[in-house]
Amino acid sequence: MISVLIVGAGNVASHLLRVFSDIDTLTVSQIGSRNLTNVPLANITILAVSDDAIATISAQISNPFVVHTSGSAALTDLQNKTQKGVFYPLQTFSKHKEIDFSQIPFCLEATNTTDLQTLTNLAKLIGNKVYHINSAQRKALHVAAVFVNNFTNHLFKIASDVCEKNQIPFEILHALIEETSNKVKVLPPAKAQTGPAIRNDEKTIKNHLNLLDKKQQEIYKILTKSIQNDS
Amino acid sequence: MISVLIVGAGNVASHLLRVFSDIDTLTVSQIGSRNLTNVPLANITILAVSDDAIATISAQISNPFVVHTSGSAALTDLQNKTQKGVFYPLQTFSKHKEIDFSQIPFCLEATNTTDLQTLTNLAKLIGNKVYHINSAQRKALHVAAVFVNNFTNHLFKIASDVCEKNQIPFEILHALIEETSNKVKVLPPAKAQTGPAIRNDEKTIKNHLNLLDKKQQEIYKILTKSIQNDS
Repeated sequence: MISVLIVGAGNVASHLLRVFSDIDTLTVSQIGSRNLTNVPLANITILAVSDDAIATISAQISNPFVVHTSGSAALTDLQNKTQKGVFYPLQTFSKHKEIDFSQIPFCLEATNTTDLQTLTNLAKLIGNKVYHINSAQRKALHVAAVFVNNFTNHLFKIASDVCEKNQIPFEILHALIEETSNKVKVLPPAKAQTGPAIRNDEKTIKNHLNLLDKKQQEIYKILTKSIQNDS
Repeated sequence: MISVLIVGAGNVASHLLRVFSDIDTLTVSQIGSRNLTNVPLANITILAVSDDAIATISAQISNPFVVHTSGSAALTDLQNKTQKGVFYPLQTFSKHKEIDFSQIPFCLEATNTTDLQTLTNLAKLIGNKVYHINSAQRKALHVAAVFVNNFTNHLFKIASDVCEKNQIPFEILHALIEETSNKVKVLPPAKAQTGPAIRNDEKTIKNHLNLLDKKQQEIYKILTKSIQNDS
Protein backbone atom coordinates (compact mmCIF):
# COMPACT_ATOMS: atom_id res chain seq x y z
CA MET A 1 0.00 0.00 0.00
CA ILE A 2 1.48 3.35 -1.08
CA SER A 3 0.56 6.38 0.98
CA VAL A 4 0.19 9.78 -0.65
CA LEU A 5 -0.10 13.11 1.13
CA ILE A 6 -1.36 16.11 -0.81
CA VAL A 7 -0.37 19.52 0.52
CA GLY A 8 -2.54 22.37 -0.75
CA ALA A 9 -6.20 23.14 -1.26
CA GLY A 10 -6.40 24.60 -4.78
CA ASN A 11 -7.78 23.14 -8.02
CA VAL A 12 -4.91 20.72 -8.66
CA ALA A 13 -4.96 19.51 -5.04
CA SER A 14 -8.68 18.82 -5.04
CA HIS A 15 -8.69 17.07 -8.44
CA LEU A 16 -5.75 14.85 -7.40
CA LEU A 17 -7.40 14.07 -4.07
CA ARG A 18 -10.57 13.00 -5.82
CA VAL A 19 -8.87 10.76 -8.37
CA PHE A 20 -6.45 9.16 -5.87
CA SER A 21 -9.34 8.43 -3.48
CA ASP A 22 -10.79 6.06 -6.09
CA ILE A 23 -7.65 3.88 -6.16
CA ASP A 24 -7.81 0.85 -3.85
CA THR A 25 -4.06 0.36 -3.63
CA LEU A 26 -3.45 3.89 -2.33
CA THR A 27 -4.12 5.67 0.90
CA VAL A 28 -4.41 9.38 0.39
CA SER A 29 -4.61 12.26 2.83
CA GLN A 30 -4.58 16.01 2.41
CA ILE A 31 -3.56 19.05 4.46
CA GLY A 32 -3.66 22.78 3.82
CA SER A 33 -0.33 24.49 3.17
CA ARG A 34 -0.67 26.73 6.22
CA ASN A 35 -0.90 23.88 8.66
CA LEU A 36 2.53 22.28 8.63
CA THR A 37 3.01 21.66 12.36
CA ASN A 38 1.83 18.07 12.23
CA VAL A 39 2.56 16.71 8.78
CA PRO A 40 1.36 13.08 8.38
CA LEU A 41 4.01 10.65 7.19
CA ALA A 42 3.57 9.41 3.60
CA ASN A 43 5.61 7.61 0.93
CA ILE A 44 4.98 10.40 -1.54
CA THR A 45 4.21 13.98 -0.51
CA ILE A 46 2.74 16.05 -3.33
CA LEU A 47 2.95 19.84 -3.00
CA ALA A 48 0.08 21.22 -5.06
CA VAL A 49 0.82 24.82 -4.09
CA SER A 50 1.70 28.04 -5.92
CA ASP A 51 5.20 28.25 -7.42
CA ASP A 52 6.25 30.93 -4.94
CA ALA A 53 5.36 28.72 -1.96
CA ILE A 54 7.28 25.60 -3.07
CA ALA A 55 10.60 26.52 -1.42
CA THR A 56 9.16 27.65 1.93
CA ILE A 57 6.73 24.77 2.30
CA SER A 58 9.12 22.03 1.17
CA ALA A 59 11.70 23.33 3.67
CA GLN A 60 9.28 22.47 6.49
CA ILE A 61 8.62 18.89 5.41
CA SER A 62 10.74 15.92 6.44
CA ASN A 63 8.78 13.18 4.68
CA PRO A 64 11.00 10.85 2.62
CA PHE A 65 9.93 11.92 -0.91
CA VAL A 66 8.53 15.36 -1.74
CA VAL A 67 7.40 16.36 -5.23
CA HIS A 68 5.79 19.48 -6.66
CA THR A 69 3.17 19.75 -9.44
CA SER A 70 4.42 22.89 -11.13
CA GLY A 71 5.09 23.34 -14.84
CA SER A 72 7.56 26.16 -14.32
CA ALA A 73 9.39 25.49 -11.02
CA ALA A 74 12.61 23.46 -11.16
CA LEU A 75 13.13 20.25 -9.21
CA THR A 76 15.87 22.09 -7.31
CA ASP A 77 13.34 24.67 -6.08
CA LEU A 78 12.32 22.05 -3.53
CA GLN A 79 14.11 22.71 -0.22
CA ASN A 80 13.32 19.49 1.67
CA LYS A 81 16.40 17.53 2.80
CA THR A 82 14.98 14.20 1.59
CA GLN A 83 14.28 12.91 -1.96
CA LYS A 84 12.84 15.31 -4.55
CA GLY A 85 10.75 14.99 -7.66
CA VAL A 86 8.20 16.57 -9.97
CA PHE A 87 4.71 15.24 -10.72
CA TYR A 88 3.29 17.67 -13.29
CA PRO A 89 -0.11 16.88 -14.82
CA LEU A 90 -0.20 18.97 -18.00
CA GLN A 91 -3.78 20.19 -18.01
CA THR A 92 -5.88 23.22 -17.16
CA PHE A 93 -7.86 22.59 -14.00
CA SER A 94 -11.12 24.35 -13.24
CA LYS A 95 -12.90 24.08 -9.93
CA HIS A 96 -16.25 23.01 -11.35
CA LYS A 97 -15.24 20.93 -14.34
CA GLU A 98 -14.44 17.23 -13.97
CA ILE A 99 -11.14 16.07 -15.40
CA ASP A 100 -10.59 12.77 -17.23
CA PHE A 101 -7.15 11.86 -15.88
CA SER A 102 -6.79 8.97 -18.31
CA GLN A 103 -6.19 11.57 -21.06
CA ILE A 104 -3.79 13.79 -19.12
CA PRO A 105 -0.04 13.55 -19.76
CA PHE A 106 2.04 13.29 -16.59
CA CYS A 107 5.47 14.90 -16.85
CA LEU A 108 7.71 13.29 -14.27
CA GLU A 109 11.17 14.03 -12.94
CA ALA A 110 13.24 12.67 -10.06
CA THR A 111 16.87 12.58 -8.97
CA ASN A 112 17.27 8.83 -9.40
CA THR A 113 15.67 5.99 -11.36
CA THR A 114 14.05 4.38 -8.29
CA ASP A 115 12.18 7.56 -7.44
CA LEU A 116 11.28 8.07 -11.10
CA GLN A 117 9.85 4.54 -11.16
CA THR A 118 7.83 5.30 -8.01
CA LEU A 119 6.31 8.38 -9.67
CA THR A 120 5.72 6.44 -12.90
CA ASN A 121 3.82 3.76 -10.97
CA LEU A 122 1.76 6.43 -9.23
CA ALA A 123 0.92 8.23 -12.50
CA LYS A 124 -0.05 4.96 -14.17
CA LEU A 125 -2.60 4.26 -11.45
CA ILE A 126 -4.63 7.24 -12.65
CA GLY A 127 -3.44 7.95 -16.20
CA ASN A 128 -2.14 6.41 -19.42
CA LYS A 129 0.34 8.97 -20.63
CA VAL A 130 3.61 9.28 -18.77
CA TYR A 131 6.62 11.28 -19.95
CA HIS A 132 10.02 11.72 -18.35
CA ILE A 133 10.72 15.43 -18.73
CA ASN A 134 13.63 17.26 -17.14
CA SER A 135 13.34 20.72 -15.53
CA ALA A 136 14.60 22.63 -18.61
CA GLN A 137 12.20 20.78 -20.89
CA ARG A 138 9.32 21.28 -18.49
CA LYS A 139 9.89 25.03 -18.49
CA ALA A 140 9.77 25.08 -22.28
CA LEU A 141 6.68 22.88 -22.21
CA HIS A 142 5.03 25.32 -19.84
CA VAL A 143 5.62 28.18 -22.27
CA ALA A 144 4.22 26.07 -25.11
CA ALA A 145 1.19 25.31 -22.91
CA VAL A 146 0.61 29.04 -22.42
CA PHE A 147 0.42 29.43 -26.22
CA VAL A 148 -2.00 26.53 -26.82
CA ASN A 149 -4.17 27.20 -23.78
CA ASN A 150 -4.05 30.75 -22.31
CA PHE A 151 -3.31 32.60 -25.55
CA THR A 152 -5.62 30.43 -27.63
CA ASN A 153 -8.41 31.06 -25.15
CA HIS A 154 -7.73 34.79 -25.48
CA LEU A 155 -8.14 34.53 -29.27
CA PHE A 156 -11.49 32.84 -28.55
CA LYS A 157 -12.30 35.82 -26.32
CA ILE A 158 -11.55 38.29 -29.13
CA ALA A 159 -13.68 36.24 -31.55
CA SER A 160 -16.46 36.21 -28.97
CA ASP A 161 -16.21 40.02 -28.63
CA VAL A 162 -16.44 40.41 -32.43
CA CYS A 163 -19.51 38.14 -32.48
CA GLU A 164 -21.19 39.97 -29.63
CA LYS A 165 -20.63 43.36 -31.26
CA ASN A 166 -22.36 42.08 -34.41
CA GLN A 167 -25.20 40.16 -32.71
CA ILE A 168 -23.85 36.80 -33.86
CA PRO A 169 -24.18 33.81 -31.50
CA PHE A 170 -20.63 32.69 -30.58
CA GLU A 171 -21.78 29.06 -30.71
CA ILE A 172 -21.60 29.27 -34.53
CA LEU A 173 -17.83 29.04 -34.05
CA HIS A 174 -17.83 25.96 -31.79
CA ALA A 175 -17.55 23.46 -34.67
CA LEU A 176 -14.67 25.37 -36.23
CA ILE A 177 -12.86 25.55 -32.89
CA GLU A 178 -13.29 21.81 -32.45
CA GLU A 179 -12.09 21.04 -35.97
CA THR A 180 -9.04 23.30 -35.49
CA SER A 181 -8.01 21.41 -32.38
CA ASN A 182 -8.76 18.00 -33.91
CA LYS A 183 -6.78 18.77 -37.05
CA VAL A 184 -3.58 19.40 -35.13
CA LYS A 185 -3.65 15.79 -33.90
CA VAL A 186 -3.41 14.41 -37.45
CA LEU A 187 -1.57 17.18 -39.28
CA PRO A 188 1.44 19.22 -38.01
CA PRO A 189 0.27 22.84 -37.43
CA ALA A 190 2.64 24.12 -40.15
CA LYS A 191 0.79 21.92 -42.65
CA ALA A 192 -2.68 22.81 -41.31
CA GLN A 193 -2.29 26.57 -41.79
CA THR A 194 -4.96 28.16 -44.01
CA GLY A 195 -6.52 31.62 -44.33
CA PRO A 196 -5.84 35.07 -45.78
CA ALA A 197 -2.41 35.49 -44.10
CA ILE A 198 -0.77 32.42 -45.66
CA ARG A 199 -2.53 33.10 -49.00
CA ASN A 200 -1.15 36.67 -48.91
CA ASP A 201 -4.71 37.80 -49.57
CA GLU A 202 -4.11 41.51 -48.86
CA LYS A 203 -7.63 42.54 -49.88
CA THR A 204 -9.30 40.29 -47.28
CA ILE A 205 -6.72 41.25 -44.65
CA LYS A 206 -7.50 44.95 -45.24
CA ASN A 207 -11.25 44.28 -45.01
CA HIS A 208 -10.76 42.37 -41.78
CA LEU A 209 -8.68 45.14 -40.21
CA ASN A 210 -11.48 47.62 -40.95
CA LEU A 211 -13.84 45.58 -38.79
CA LEU A 212 -11.57 45.49 -35.73
CA ASP A 213 -10.74 47.95 -32.99
CA LYS A 214 -7.19 49.24 -32.46
CA LYS A 215 -6.10 46.53 -30.01
CA GLN A 216 -7.62 43.74 -32.07
CA GLN A 217 -5.93 45.16 -35.17
CA GLU A 218 -2.55 45.08 -33.44
CA ILE A 219 -2.96 41.37 -32.67
CA TYR A 220 -4.35 40.61 -36.14
CA LYS A 221 -1.36 42.31 -37.80
CA ILE A 222 1.34 40.69 -35.69
CA LEU A 223 -0.09 37.18 -36.13
CA THR A 224 -0.62 37.71 -39.87
CA LYS A 225 3.00 38.88 -40.23
CA SER A 226 4.24 35.92 -38.20
CA ILE A 227 2.29 33.43 -40.37
CA GLN A 228 3.69 35.06 -43.52
CA ASN A 229 7.26 35.03 -42.20
CA ASP A 230 6.91 31.37 -41.34
CA SER A 231 5.69 30.22 -44.74
CA MET B 1 -36.52 16.81 -56.92
CA ILE B 2 -34.24 19.81 -56.39
CA SER B 3 -31.31 20.16 -58.77
CA VAL B 4 -28.03 21.63 -57.58
CA LEU B 5 -25.12 22.72 -59.77
CA ILE B 6 -21.75 23.26 -58.15
CA VAL B 7 -19.36 25.57 -60.00
CA GLY B 8 -15.73 25.17 -58.95
CA ALA B 9 -13.24 22.41 -58.28
CA GLY B 10 -11.59 23.35 -54.97
CA ASN B 11 -11.94 21.90 -51.46
CA VAL B 12 -15.39 23.35 -50.73
CA ALA B 13 -16.72 22.27 -54.16
CA SER B 14 -15.54 18.68 -53.80
CA HIS B 15 -16.77 18.28 -50.19
CA LEU B 16 -20.20 19.69 -51.15
CA LEU B 17 -20.37 17.46 -54.24
CA ARG B 18 -19.63 14.40 -52.11
CA VAL B 19 -22.19 15.17 -49.42
CA PHE B 20 -24.96 16.20 -51.86
CA SER B 21 -24.40 13.03 -53.91
CA ASP B 22 -25.55 10.98 -50.92
CA ILE B 23 -28.96 12.72 -50.77
CA ASP B 24 -31.71 10.85 -52.67
CA THR B 25 -33.97 13.88 -53.09
CA LEU B 26 -31.28 15.90 -54.87
CA THR B 27 -29.66 15.74 -58.27
CA VAL B 28 -26.24 17.29 -58.22
CA SER B 29 -23.84 18.16 -61.02
CA GLN B 30 -20.55 20.01 -61.10
CA ILE B 31 -18.54 22.06 -63.60
CA GLY B 32 -15.19 23.82 -63.45
CA SER B 33 -15.26 27.60 -63.26
CA ARG B 34 -13.38 28.01 -66.56
CA ASN B 35 -15.96 26.16 -68.61
CA LEU B 36 -19.02 28.40 -68.59
CA THR B 37 -20.09 28.06 -72.22
CA ASN B 38 -22.63 25.36 -71.56
CA VAL B 39 -23.91 25.78 -68.01
CA PRO B 40 -26.44 23.07 -67.04
CA LEU B 41 -29.76 24.39 -65.73
CA ALA B 42 -30.34 23.87 -61.98
CA ASN B 43 -32.67 25.15 -59.26
CA ILE B 44 -29.73 26.22 -57.13
CA THR B 45 -26.31 27.10 -58.58
CA ILE B 46 -23.56 27.15 -55.95
CA LEU B 47 -20.39 29.06 -56.79
CA ALA B 48 -17.62 27.48 -54.73
CA VAL B 49 -14.93 29.68 -56.21
CA SER B 50 -12.40 32.19 -54.88
CA ASP B 51 -13.77 35.54 -53.69
CA ASP B 52 -12.14 37.40 -56.57
CA ALA B 53 -13.88 35.21 -59.15
CA ILE B 54 -17.44 35.56 -57.79
CA ALA B 55 -18.37 38.69 -59.79
CA THR B 56 -16.98 37.54 -63.15
CA ILE B 57 -18.35 34.01 -62.95
CA SER B 58 -21.80 34.96 -61.66
CA ALA B 59 -22.12 37.52 -64.50
CA GLN B 60 -21.92 34.64 -66.99
CA ILE B 61 -24.64 32.52 -65.38
CA SER B 62 -28.33 32.85 -66.19
CA ASN B 63 -29.63 30.07 -63.94
CA PRO B 64 -32.57 31.17 -61.73
CA PHE B 65 -30.84 31.20 -58.33
CA VAL B 66 -27.10 31.67 -57.85
CA VAL B 67 -25.38 31.60 -54.44
CA HIS B 68 -21.77 31.84 -53.34
CA THR B 69 -20.05 30.03 -50.44
CA SER B 70 -17.76 32.81 -49.25
CA GLY B 71 -17.39 34.08 -45.71
CA SER B 72 -16.17 37.50 -46.78
CA ALA B 73 -17.89 38.36 -50.07
CA ALA B 74 -21.21 40.25 -49.91
CA LEU B 75 -24.43 38.95 -51.46
CA THR B 76 -24.28 41.96 -53.78
CA ASP B 77 -20.92 40.81 -55.15
CA LEU B 78 -22.93 38.36 -57.26
CA GLN B 79 -23.48 39.82 -60.73
CA ASN B 80 -26.09 37.38 -62.14
CA LYS B 81 -29.34 39.01 -63.19
CA THR B 82 -31.48 36.37 -61.45
CA GLN B 83 -31.98 35.60 -57.75
CA LYS B 84 -28.98 35.77 -55.40
CA GLY B 85 -28.00 34.18 -52.13
CA VAL B 86 -25.21 33.00 -49.86
CA PHE B 87 -24.63 29.42 -48.70
CA TYR B 88 -21.61 29.65 -46.37
CA PRO B 89 -20.57 26.50 -44.51
CA LEU B 90 -18.44 27.80 -41.62
CA GLN B 91 -15.65 25.26 -41.50
CA THR B 92 -12.06 24.72 -42.56
CA PHE B 93 -11.90 22.29 -45.47
CA SER B 94 -8.84 20.19 -46.18
CA LYS B 95 -8.48 18.08 -49.28
CA HIS B 96 -7.68 14.86 -47.49
CA LYS B 97 -9.77 15.12 -44.35
CA GLU B 98 -13.43 14.04 -44.31
CA ILE B 99 -15.91 16.56 -42.99
CA ASP B 100 -18.91 15.72 -40.80
CA PHE B 101 -21.45 18.13 -42.28
CA SER B 102 -23.97 17.39 -39.53
CA GLN B 103 -21.78 19.48 -37.19
CA ILE B 104 -21.15 22.38 -39.57
CA PRO B 105 -23.12 25.61 -39.18
CA PHE B 106 -24.58 26.92 -42.45
CA CYS B 107 -24.81 30.69 -42.64
CA LEU B 108 -27.50 31.58 -45.15
CA GLU B 109 -28.61 34.78 -46.80
CA ALA B 110 -31.04 35.60 -49.64
CA THR B 111 -32.94 38.59 -50.95
CA ASN B 112 -36.39 37.23 -50.07
CA THR B 113 -37.93 34.75 -47.64
CA THR B 114 -38.82 32.17 -50.34
CA ASP B 115 -35.19 31.93 -51.46
CA LEU B 116 -34.02 31.85 -47.86
CA GLN B 117 -36.41 28.96 -47.23
CA THR B 118 -35.03 27.13 -50.29
CA LEU B 119 -31.49 27.47 -48.93
CA THR B 120 -32.63 26.46 -45.45
CA ASN B 121 -34.21 23.29 -46.87
CA LEU B 122 -31.03 22.51 -48.80
CA ALA B 123 -28.79 23.06 -45.74
CA LYS B 124 -31.04 20.87 -43.56
CA LEU B 125 -30.64 17.98 -45.99
CA ILE B 126 -26.96 17.75 -45.04
CA GLY B 127 -26.64 19.57 -41.71
CA ASN B 128 -28.36 20.40 -38.44
CA LYS B 129 -27.22 23.91 -37.76
CA VAL B 130 -28.67 26.68 -39.87
CA TYR B 131 -28.27 30.40 -39.21
CA HIS B 132 -29.66 33.38 -41.08
CA ILE B 133 -26.73 35.79 -41.24
CA ASN B 134 -26.64 38.99 -43.28
CA SER B 135 -23.60 40.16 -45.28
CA ALA B 136 -22.31 42.54 -42.60
CA GLN B 137 -22.60 39.86 -39.92
CA ARG B 138 -20.97 37.27 -42.15
CA LYS B 139 -17.95 39.51 -42.67
CA ALA B 140 -17.56 39.92 -38.92
CA LEU B 141 -18.01 36.18 -38.49
CA HIS B 142 -15.26 35.57 -41.02
CA VAL B 143 -12.84 37.74 -39.03
CA ALA B 144 -13.81 35.88 -35.85
CA ALA B 145 -13.19 32.60 -37.69
CA VAL B 146 -9.68 33.76 -38.61
CA PHE B 147 -8.97 34.26 -34.90
CA VAL B 148 -10.28 30.87 -33.74
CA ASN B 149 -8.89 28.91 -36.69
CA ASN B 150 -5.97 30.49 -38.58
CA PHE B 151 -4.45 32.40 -35.68
CA THR B 152 -5.08 29.63 -33.16
CA ASN B 153 -3.38 27.17 -35.49
CA HIS B 154 -0.42 29.55 -35.69
CA LEU B 155 -0.17 29.55 -31.88
CA PHE B 156 -0.09 25.73 -32.12
CA LYS B 157 2.74 26.14 -34.64
CA ILE B 158 4.74 28.31 -32.23
CA ALA B 159 4.15 25.79 -29.42
CA SER B 160 5.27 23.02 -31.74
CA ASP B 161 8.45 24.97 -32.59
CA VAL B 162 9.18 25.45 -28.87
CA CYS B 163 8.67 21.72 -28.28
CA GLU B 164 10.87 20.74 -31.19
CA LYS B 165 13.69 23.01 -30.06
CA ASN B 166 13.61 21.32 -26.64
CA GLN B 167 13.17 17.72 -27.85
CA ILE B 168 9.67 17.46 -26.40
CA PRO B 169 7.04 15.48 -28.34
CA PHE B 170 4.31 17.94 -29.39
CA GLU B 171 1.67 15.25 -28.69
CA ILE B 172 2.07 15.99 -24.95
CA LEU B 173 0.02 19.12 -25.69
CA HIS B 174 -2.84 17.37 -27.54
CA ALA B 175 -4.94 16.82 -24.40
CA LEU B 176 -4.53 20.44 -23.32
CA ILE B 177 -5.49 21.68 -26.79
CA GLU B 178 -8.60 19.50 -26.72
CA GLU B 179 -9.58 20.64 -23.24
CA THR B 180 -9.09 24.30 -24.22
CA SER B 181 -11.47 23.92 -27.14
CA ASN B 182 -13.98 21.86 -25.13
CA LYS B 183 -14.01 24.35 -22.27
CA VAL B 184 -15.13 27.21 -24.50
CA LYS B 185 -18.35 25.30 -25.24
CA VAL B 186 -19.40 25.33 -21.59
CA LEU B 187 -17.71 28.47 -20.27
CA PRO B 188 -17.48 31.89 -21.99
CA PRO B 189 -13.80 32.48 -22.95
CA ALA B 190 -13.61 35.50 -20.62
CA LYS B 191 -14.43 33.17 -17.71
CA ALA B 192 -12.11 30.38 -18.89
CA GLN B 193 -8.98 32.55 -18.93
CA THR B 194 -6.14 31.24 -16.74
CA GLY B 195 -2.35 31.53 -16.74
CA PRO B 196 0.44 33.94 -15.81
CA ALA B 197 -0.97 36.91 -17.79
CA ILE B 198 -4.31 37.11 -15.98
CA ARG B 199 -2.62 36.32 -12.64
CA ASN B 200 -0.17 39.17 -13.27
CA ASP B 201 2.58 36.67 -12.49
CA GLU B 202 5.47 38.84 -13.71
CA LYS B 203 8.13 36.38 -12.56
CA THR B 204 6.77 33.54 -14.71
CA ILE B 205 6.19 35.91 -17.65
CA LYS B 206 9.84 37.02 -17.46
CA ASN B 207 11.02 33.40 -17.32
CA HIS B 208 8.88 32.52 -20.32
CA LEU B 209 10.18 35.43 -22.39
CA ASN B 210 13.75 34.24 -21.74
CA LEU B 211 12.94 30.94 -23.44
CA LEU B 212 11.55 32.49 -26.63
CA ASP B 213 13.10 34.02 -29.72
CA LYS B 214 12.49 37.67 -30.68
CA LYS B 215 9.40 37.04 -32.84
CA GLN B 216 7.84 34.65 -30.33
CA GLN B 217 8.52 37.21 -27.56
CA GLU B 218 6.70 39.90 -29.53
CA ILE B 219 3.58 37.70 -29.78
CA TYR B 220 3.86 36.58 -26.15
CA LYS B 221 4.04 40.20 -24.97
CA ILE B 222 1.16 41.55 -27.03
CA LEU B 223 -1.19 38.70 -26.05
CA THR B 224 -0.19 38.98 -22.39
CA LYS B 225 -0.87 42.73 -22.45
CA SER B 226 -4.20 42.18 -24.17
CA ILE B 227 -5.28 39.58 -21.56
CA GLN B 228 -4.28 41.97 -18.76
CA ASN B 229 -6.13 44.91 -20.34
CA ASP B 230 -9.24 42.76 -20.69
CA SER B 231 -9.39 41.59 -17.09
